[in-house]
Formats: sequence, C-alpha cells, structure tokens
Amino acid sequence: MAAIDLNSDLGESFGIWRLGDDEAMLDVVSSANIACGFHAGDPSTLRRVCQAAADRSVMIGAQVAYPDLAGFGRRFIDIDPAELRDAVLYQLGALDAFAQVAGTGVKYVKPHGALYHACISHPEQAEAVAEAAHEYDPSMAILGAPASPLLAVTDALGMEPVAEAFADRAYRADGTLVPRSEPGAVITDRQAVADRAVALAIERRVTAVDGSVIEVHARSICVHGDTPGAVELARAVRSGLEVASVDVQAFTI
Amino acid sequence: MAAIDLNSDLGESFGIWRLGDDEAMLDVVSSANIACGFHAGDPSTLRRVCQAAADRSVMIGAQVAYPDLAGFGRRFIDIDPAELRDAVLYQLGALDAFAQVAGTGVKYVKPHGALYHACISHPEQAEAVAEAAHEYDPSMAILGAPASPLLAVTDALGMEPVAEAFADRAYRADGTLVPRSEPGAVITDRQAVADRAVALAIERRVTAVDGSVIEVHARSICVHGDTPGAVELARAVRSGLEVASVDVQAFTI
Amino acid sequence: MAAIDLNSDLGESFGIWRLGDDEAMLDVVSSANIACGFHAGDPSTLRRVCQAAADRSVMIGAQVAYPDLAGFGRRFIDIDPAELRDAVLYQLGALDAFAQVAGTGVKYVKPHGALYHACISHPEQAEAVAEAAHEYDPSMAILGAPASPLLAVTDALGMEPVAEAFADRAYRADGTLVPRSEPGAVITDRQAVADRAVALAIERRVTAVDGSVIEVHARSICVHGDTPGAVELARAVRSGLEVASVDVQAFTI
Amino acid sequence: MAAIDLNSDLGESFGIWRLGDDEAMLDVVSSANIACGFHAGDPSTLRRVCQAAADRSVMIGAQVAYPDLAGFGRRFIDIDPAELRDAVLYQLGALDAFAQVAGTGVKYVKPHGALYHACISHPEQAEAVAEAAHEYDPSMAILGAPASPLLAVTDALGMEPVAEAFADRAYRADGTLVPRSEPGAVITDRQAVADRAVALAIERRVTAVDGSVIEVHARSICVHGDTPGAVELARAVRSGLEVASVDVQAFTI
Repeated sequence: MAAIDLNSDLGESFGIWRLGDDEAMLDVVSSANIACGFHAGDPSTLRRVCQAAADRSVMIGAQVAYPDLAGFGRRFIDIDPAELRDAVLYQLGALDAFAQVAGTGVKYVKPHGALYHACISHPEQAEAVAEAAHEYDPSMAILGAPASPLLAVTDALGMEPVAEAFADRAYRADGTLVPRSEPGAVITDRQAVADRAVALAIERRVTAVDGSVIEVHARSICVHGDTPGAVELARAVRSGLEVASVDVQAFTI
Repeated sequence: MAAIDLNSDLGESFGIWRLGDDEAMLDVVSSANIACGFHAGDPSTLRRVCQAAADRSVMIGAQVAYPDLAGFGRRFIDIDPAELRDAVLYQLGALDAFAQVAGTGVKYVKPHGALYHACISHPEQAEAVAEAAHEYDPSMAILGAPASPLLAVTDALGMEPVAEAFADRAYRADGTLVPRSEPGAVITDRQAVADRAVALAIERRVTAVDGSVIEVHARSICVHGDTPGAVELARAVRSGLEVASVDVQAFTI
Repeated sequence: MAAIDLNSDLGESFGIWRLGDDEAMLDVVSSANIACGFHAGDPSTLRRVCQAAADRSVMIGAQVAYPDLAGFGRRFIDIDPAELRDAVLYQLGALDAFAQVAGTGVKYVKPHGALYHACISHPEQAEAVAEAAHEYDPSMAILGAPASPLLAVTDALGMEPVAEAFADRAYRADGTLVPRSEPGAVITDRQAVADRAVALAIERRVTAVDGSVIEVHARSICVHGDTPGAVELARAVRSGLEVASVDVQAFTI
Repeated sequence: MAAIDLNSDLGESFGIWRLGDDEAMLDVVSSANIACGFHAGDPSTLRRVCQAAADRSVMIGAQVAYPDLAGFGRRFIDIDPAELRDAVLYQLGALDAFAQVAGTGVKYVKPHGALYHACISHPEQAEAVAEAAHEYDPSMAILGAPASPLLAVTDALGMEPVAEAFADRAYRADGTLVPRSEPGAVITDRQAVADRAVALAIERRVTAVDGSVIEVHARSICVHGDTPGAVELARAVRSGLEVASVDVQAFTI
C-alpha cells in the first residue's frame, strides 16, 4: 500500500494578526511545519499549534527562518553562516519547548521562505541549517527541495533527508518547478491537483508542462493553507489520496 | 564547612553591542544567569557564553525577561499572565538548546530586571514564571528574592526555591533592601562588601543600616559584572570568601 | 447646522498580516488615526493609507503607541516619560513624512491602546505625549478622552484638545464608560448606535445606563473598523448622521 | 583656500548599549551621519545626538539602513525596492523630527553598511534610496561612493550628489578601495592618514598601492569613531587639515 506525507506551514499568526486556519489544516496534514517566532509565530501561537498538532498525532517540525517579521522571512538575508546556525538552533530549542510540553517533540526541520530557497542556491547557508539540526538532535530529519545542497549535507551528516513535491505546481521536464512568474505555474483545479498528488504518491511521477512524464521522488507533498480556498484544495488532495488507497501518514525517520 | 553560591547576569551583549566581561565573571561565579534574547543576548552570544560556562563547570540558569530590547527589560509590562508564561517557556527552550549543545543544560530560572521586581509585587506574573519553569522541567530551581511570591509558588509547585542576597546593598532592619534612591544604598568599599559576603555565607546575617544585625537566609549572593569596577568587586568577594574558607559552589537542587 | 467628526484607527496591518479594511473605513470617517509602526503599521502601509486618506480629504492623525508589536500596544509599559516623549516624537516624524508625500500632513495625535488609557491615569505619560506633539508642531490638536490629563496638558500647552465619544458604548451617569467586562457595555444594534451618534452630535447628550440623560461634549465620535460588522456599523452611523442633517467633517483646529 | 567636509557615523547606541563617543566626534567632524533606529539609534539617542550636532553647527544627515538591529545593518537584505523606499522615507521623517526640534533639519542622506554597498552594486536599491530622499525633500544631498549608481540617480533626479573618500584606506590604481581582507587595506599611522587627507583635500589626489598617483574627486572624507583609537585618528586628520590651511566645513548643497 502506497503512503505519502502531507506537510503544511502552520503557526504563522503573530500577536493580534491571524494567518491561515491552523486547526483546519491540522485535520488534513500528517506533518506540521510550525513557525518559530522569527518570521511569524508568537510564543502563545506556538503553544496552541503544538498542542493542536499533538492532539491529532500530527508530527511537529520546526519551520525555521531568517529573523524577519516585517518581511515574513521572504527576503534573502546575507547572514554569516555561523550566525545563521545559531539563529536556527535558537528557534529549534524554543519550538521544542512547546512541543515537549504538548507531549511530543520537534522531529524535523524545514526552512521557510527565502531561507528555503537559499538552501538550494547557497550551500553555506544550507550547511548552517543542517549543522544546527544535527547539533540539537542528530535523529531529526530535514525536509527540503529534492537534490538540494540542504538534503545533501543532511545525508552527509548521517541525518534523514526528506524530499518534498508540490501537487499544485507545474514541473518542467528537468524536474524543476515552473517559476510563479510564468503562466500555468500554479494549478488551481482541485481534481487535477488531487490527481497529481495521487500520481506523485503511487507512481512517483508527474506530467511536466511539455507533456513528458518525469520521475519525482518525494516522501512528502507540501500543501498550503493560508487562504480559505487553499484549505479546500488541501482537503481535496487528502480525499483524492484516500480514495486511491494512499495512506496519508508522516514520513518515517 | 560553609558554602555559598555566587550568581551574576551574563550574556547581555546584543549584536555589535557588548556589555560586561562574560569570561572574567565566569571565573568568579558558580552560577550564570544567561540572557535569553528578550532583553539582551543574541543567539551567537548565547552559544558563546553557554560554552564558556560549561568549560568552567559554572551552572547555567535562564535569565528570563519581558520582550523589551529597547528597555533592556527594565520597564514593567502589564502582560497577560498566560502570554508571559509562554514567553518564559520560549526563552527557556531557546537557551537550553545552547546549554545542551555545550554539554549541560539549564538548571534554574532567574527573572531579570522589571520582571524580577514584578515577581515580588505581582503574584500572577510570579506564578506565570514558575509555571513555565515547572512545565519545562520540574527539577529546575528558581532563584529570586527572599520571601517573594515567586519563591512561594516555586515551593508550592514542588520545585526548589533559592533565595539570594546582595553583599553590596544596604539592608533595612526588616530585611528589605534600602532603595537605590536613598543615600548609602550601595556599598562600594571592596573590603566591606567582601566582609558582608562572608557574614552572609557563614552566619546567615548582615548588619542593617540602623546597626541591628538581621538574619538573611540566602543560598546565593548576586554579584554584578557590567562595569570594570564591578568585576574587581566580584573578585574581591570571591577572594574574601575563599580566605574565610567558604566554599564557592553552585547551590544544589 | 450641527457637525461632528468621525475618527477611526487605521493602518494597523503589518507586513503580510492584514487588519481591517482601511479603504472602506476611509469612505466613512473624516479623521484617520494612522498607526505609526510601533504597535502596527509598516512603512508601506503608512504610505498606502496616508495616500488613500489624502485622496479622500480625510484628515490624518498620528496614532502613537508604546513600542510593542507583539502586544499590539495593548500592554501598559512603565516607560520613562522622557523616553516615551522621544518615542512619540519619532513616530510623529515618521508618519508625517508619508502624510507630506501624500500632499498633506499630520494634523493631530491620538494615543493608542494602553497608552490611551495611561493618558487618563498616568499624568506623567500624558504629559510626555503632549510635549512631543507640542515640540513637533504646536498647531496640532490632540484627540483623547474627555476630562483626561492628556487634554488638560494639551490645553495648558496652548494646543487644541479634542474630546471624543463612543456611540456604541454604554455610559454611566457620571459620564464614564461602562467597562467592557460588564454586561451591556457594548451596543451592537445599528439603529441604536446611529441614534446615539445623532444625539451626541446634535444635543451633546446621551442616555446613560440608569436612564438619566447626561451631557457629553465631544467633537469627535470614534468608530471601529477592524471587523466586517464594524464597517457596517460605521456606515450606519454615518448614514444616520447624514439623514439627521449632521455634517460629518473633521474637527477644526 | 581649500575646503573639505569630514563626516562620521554617529548615534549608533541602542538602549543600554553604547557605541562610540558621539560628543568627541562631533568636535571633529562637520557632517554627522546619524543613525535612524533601523540598524541602531533609539529615539532618545536621536534626540541627544541631533541636539549635540546642532549645538556645534554640525550638519545633520540621515544614516539610513536596512531594518536589522541584530545585524547592525551589515547584512545585505534582498528587500523589494518599493518597500526599501518606504523604509528609507520612514527613517528620514523620524530623524528629521529630532533635527527640527534641535533647530535645524536633515540636510542629506547617507546609506549605512550593507545598504551602502548595495547602492554600488544593486541599482534598484540605489534608486529606491534616492527616490525616498527626493520625495521627502528634493533639496537634500546624498553622500555615497564616487561613481556609484546612487550618485548617478541622485544627479538624474536633480539632487546634489556628494562623493566621499577614505583617508585611512588604501586605493588601487583604478580608484577602488583595497578590500579589507587584503593586507595593507587599512592605514593606521596617524601622520600618514592625516597626510593623505590633506592630499585628498588640496590636490584631489592620493597615492595608490602600486605607487601611482590617482585622482579622487571627493567633497567629503569619512572618519570613523567607534573605537577610542579612531577618535584620536579623526582628531589627527582634522589637525593635519588645519595645519595645511584646509578649511573643515560641511559640503554646500
């Protein structure tokens, strides 16, 4: 029986400001990338979302980010790698306190926003993220882009690299994503997205924009939840997987 | 043989800005109250000071504070107790990550600045601090003012309350400190301060401003290190204790 | 012909997080209390809302606050009055840059959240707010609670004090508001709120909870806009005023 | 009679943390680049340094920066140009409030740290800085690196571009600075630095590392003041200029 993990970015409220419907998404996903306070997520949000995840047996990951509330972590920052490592370790410890109080713990790391992309294009920053995770707990996994420097260094450190795919994004024949600036980059038809998720989970394949069928080896599919429509789309993905007898469960470490 | 703990606020640099001489003070004290990033202390400072403390077998405590870099945690903030509890838990986890990476862990909590005083006069805030510590690790101690609500709730939760005294501050006959705004509140003569530290450690007594001798039951003496003269004073206290055959060692939990 | 000002808190988004519908409210009010970045409001939000206000000839005021993004300025902070004065001056200058670029300028100051309340109960903080406004531009007005220390010091400095009333809040016979914690404190019926606004504007009176009719001398009525229902309520207030031939216009300075 | 401006970064303390000796440097320079709160400089520091500059008739400039207290503005941030423009405008208005209260005003803009360098290599960011200055007050000057995109766009907007030189930095034959990572990049001998300042002021020339004499057209020389030795060096530069009958005065706009 095929199985796949669904992950989503959660806990991204801050103070009075709310973003997304954490509880609704926790009913859909098997892994929760919870913000750690640097791009979003105040301490009370961390508590609430960690507890809600633990209540549903959803695995908790640390969605680590640049220190950038104003930019929501979406601005590349040319931070010294040693300082980045320390910033990631700080976030890991902070989130883990809430995960432990909720009866579980942080099981994996996923970089957020511009740091996610830096972990593809800036090997030194990728290394800093992986080192912090390794220092904190070498049994943790790291979730990131397939074939990225981040997953390579994760593997080199003896940790578990987990590649993710996107059911609602168009792929090019070379396996990379069509940039959002290009037409057709984002797929919005629910049935189509659900079908792609099933193909990714069962066949490890997806149809690229040129019609070719490419292999995508991913153990997790990222679903977004920060708009009402996104929640519905995420639910459609989960339903489609269940109808196809794909088990939605957290990746094993 | 008498024994006493010496504690000091450390790790209070932030980014480019330096405050105090952490390494010099770590050669004097047996317990380090390390800032956690909310009133001071960036992640790389936390790493450096935790490692330096661990290298010297100095016990690490979390110097938790209000979220207030601009005010250095010295401004009372009327924060909701549940949010304060979560802010303290966040700080505990963050610092503990660095303490663990340095091979040890956070062993106690000491509130900083205005939060220290709120733990005397605002029982709800005191309770929030103690609850966070208890949630995180019930085997931790809490360091605070003698007879404060903070130490009372610490005791009620089954945790170890540790009272501290000040060798360089004048006491009133009722056991409270002479406010800094009054003349004679701070004692600057090194020999006098060292003598008072010895009296506090061996006899558990100190001479008040009216000449009466009062009992002060404290298991730790706080020494300051954020000015060059303060480092010298701290060294004088330690020397005085050693000459009097008082063992300077971390309080036991 | 009777006239009254309607004011509302605007510009309270921050980065990715949105709060309220600034444009919708700017079609209702005659004065905009625009956040200045300390409790809410990033620079690009300030630009957008200042321009939108100027486009509609809505008067711009500075909604100054404690430095407290995490608490949305709703936590009392025991800040040194001189530092508060400087923090207010900083906010005034920052907002005025955007108001000037939009072709107008900041015409008044209204303290936000916990600072609003401190300007009633902490005269030193009220004085600090008024002094900053006076230093910056003595021709500015200050909007606040009737009979507050803030308005008294505003008057003493030779500036224009402007008292505000609340059409959707119950009043006690002594002219103070029924606290939100008590039943009936907030009036939600649109017609009732609109009727009270008309009574406040024309008769300068409102019916208190004990049935007595009390005098309320206010030149502005505060309307809230941070929920969809609040926008509808604000529109009902404006319509009610217009039907009663009350001119909705910014208070004169 | 030759004349030259001396400029220095000032107002870079934050809260309890002090950096540099603002008053000592204000006795040396003719132009003060005052931090605006984004990389350093709390509101009370802005007031103090603006007043001290005004007292000495030192011209005030806005040392605008990325929003980055933790990194002291030394980390490149890939911020959207429109958001950067708004962040610069915010800083300009905030500082100008203090400059005006001190009886003067902000006369020029100088980008700080990583933003200074981005204004050389990222034309879109340079344009954003210049646009904000132009929006705020088209009569302001902009101080930056010779031949930089920042000064080009300043000129194109009809504003005054002012190039600066460094008396304590080695130049290459092509007029660029020897990178700090290379030996000999920084000149520490006071007499040598003073002599170079005189040559820059009178002959508009300096000797490059290969022995060739190159032309450097700069109307201002940057002197640093954030270490005690730097203050002495700055004084030596000023004395050297005065002995050579060079008038140290703010550049005219």
